[in-house]
Amino acid sequence: MASGGGVEEASNKQVILKDYVSGFPKESDMYVNTSGTIKLKVPEGSNAVLVKNLYLSCDPYMRPRMKQPIPGGETYIESFKPGSPISGHGVAKVLDSGHPNFKKGDLIWGMTGWEEYSLITATQTLFKIQHTDVPLSYYTGLLGMAGVTAYAGFYEICSPKKGEHVFISAASGAVGQLVGQFAKLLGCHVVGSAGSKEKVDLLKNKFGFDDAFNYKEEPDLDAALKRYFPEGIDIYFENVGGKMLDAVLLNMRIRGRIAVCGMISQYNLDKPEGVQNLMTLIWKRVRMEGFLVFDYFHLYPKFLELVLPYIKEGKITYVEDIAEGLENAPAALIGLFTGRNVGKQLVVVARE
Amino acid sequence: MASGGGVEEASNKQVILKDYVSGFPKESDMYVNTSGTIKLKVPEGSNAVLVKNLYLSCDPYMRPRMKQPIPGGETYIESFKPGSPISGHGVAKVLDSGHPNFKKGDLIWGMTGWEEYSLITATQTLFKIQHTDVPLSYYTGLLGMAGVTAYAGFYEICSPKKGEHVFISAASGAVGQLVGQFAKLLGCHVVGSAGSKEKVDLLKNKFGFDDAFNYKEEPDLDAALKRYFPEGIDIYFENVGGKMLDAVLLNMRIRGRIAVCGMISQYNLDKPEGVQNLMTLIWKRVRMEGFLVFDYFHLYPKFLELVLPYIKEGKITYVEDIAEGLENAPAALIGLFTGRNVGKQLVVVARE
Repeated sequence: MASGGGVEEASNKQVILKDYVSGFPKESDMYVNTSGTIKLKVPEGSNAVLVKNLYLSCDPYMRPRMKQPIPGGETYIESFKPGSPISGHGVAKVLDSGHPNFKKGDLIWGMTGWEEYSLITATQTLFKIQHTDVPLSYYTGLLGMAGVTAYAGFYEICSPKKGEHVFISAASGAVGQLVGQFAKLLGCHVVGSAGSKEKVDLLKNKFGFDDAFNYKEEPDLDAALKRYFPEGIDIYFENVGGKMLDAVLLNMRIRGRIAVCGMISQYNLDKPEGVQNLMTLIWKRVRMEGFLVFDYFHLYPKFLELVLPYIKEGKITYVEDIAEGLENAPAALIGLFTGRNVGKQLVVVARE
Repeated sequence: MASGGGVEEASNKQVILKDYVSGFPKESDMYVNTSGTIKLKVPEGSNAVLVKNLYLSCDPYMRPRMKQPIPGGETYIESFKPGSPISGHGVAKVLDSGHPNFKKGDLIWGMTGWEEYSLITATQTLFKIQHTDVPLSYYTGLLGMAGVTAYAGFYEICSPKKGEHVFISAASGAVGQLVGQFAKLLGCHVVGSAGSKEKVDLLKNKFGFDDAFNYKEEPDLDAALKRYFPEGIDIYFENVGGKMLDAVLLNMRIRGRIAVCGMISQYNLDKPEGVQNLMTLIWKRVRMEGFLVFDYFHLYPKFLELVLPYIKEGKITYVEDIAEGLENAPAALIGLFTGRNVGKQLVVVARE
């Protein structure tokens, strides 16, 4: 760190988006810029927060943010800017603060930059971390956005009841592994799908799913679901979309519910796959509801109250896939879309 | 009528399904058999009801009943039997009854046969008609299944609020015309689509919709919806499916609701069209819910309480398309799928 004009300045490695992405994203759509610097001080009079980033979260919703915005088209979140560092959820330490709610030394999680240090002006996305007797990295997933997503999607959208039959796709991912554990704790029958033997083993042996299958080894998804759910599916927690959704629709039970959390199989297609079996919504009186975690952050304290004791009692476990250093961040993010990650994918920028 | 063994016997014209239907149904998939007879008496000891059919309802859900049942496949209602008369909702007069709730001379509506006289054993589908100061034919539509469908679909599934923007497809049909009028009475902004200039005029001039368009004249349904709903759609009452649903999804507002009542554009396709824009359910947090009127018949008294005064005050109007005689019944039913009918399609078998 160099001192300049009384303000400490540091070099600041950043992950930059080269240009808008169409089709399947590649590592080379981003690059790591090592020549930047940052003043480690909040500008005079600003209520921003200056943080040192520790852990960064890789999330599927970041793919749509790489797209060129459609003029006049609406979207729920703005696109990244080519030439600028990308952003996402992360865990960070406050180095300087102009905001009354945050002070130097605080640990926070929320929206930050993919870089070593960030000046965060959108402080409304930040949560102060109060509980540090759990791994800090959990605040990128289990105790962060993925956790609230699983909690709101399962309890608020699915209206689950004990004994119901629950199916989760992308079930070993950041959200899926938690939904399955919530469902088991409630007394549901839980089956998950994932894309490798290793992940299927995790679901059955580590997360306590009743059963699990590798969708890549099932040429007929409808037949697979009929095998695992001979009586049908009450609740489908949708993370993938496309062919899996079409097969699930054929297997829903009367008054079933589908929480549409994500459709990762569709994010890299220029034209989404068509879903043909929506008539089942009528015959089976199915409710299908999309949701965004941003609408549910007010439930965060209630969520922590439920989940912290479960973690401490060992009733909820969490698997993370940790990439080391910003240099490896682009590959970690791209890996989400090939299913390379096992469990919640995150990047360590610094451990303290 | 001839007397046989002390029991009066009558000739009984019937509309018979020739064979299971795939693809687009034709008049010739049915025929009218004039050689049958029926004893006008309920068998000794039975609690069935013997009725003279007056009005028969033509409904889109009858198309799926013409399909060959899939072995092991589930469906919400059983298929018609080739060689037997088809059945549907209708208005009838009781000639003889073994059931304590019905007596000779009662007027009823419910599930009956497409024939002059029917012996109804599934009496749980029958409602006794208490109010006869409205056209009796209304009990095939406005005051029958279509009415309860519109009522439950709009009030129970759509959770409508005053001022919301409502779109209805097949809007001049048996259900659509009512949903639109309910929505107007609540203070919503209501636009409907239909398949001819005559129907569009009805929507605007007779049913009081704020606007309406002919979907057949819109090469770009998305653009059409953007023109009629520059701020987007809060509620979509879905009667058609396919391309219209795909276009609507692109125009839904945040926390919009889609009541899936029917998908008539898909019933005659061997393979349903694919719907591509389901990701909007996530970005816009949309709830899409299928329903069947059979689940809502307990609301019938509440529905009548609302709608009878509206009819008498002229606040709700209803357009019927009436075919005369069982001979014209097959054509009337097939006409639903080409959009030949203007308003609720029904068949008069006898007027008393």
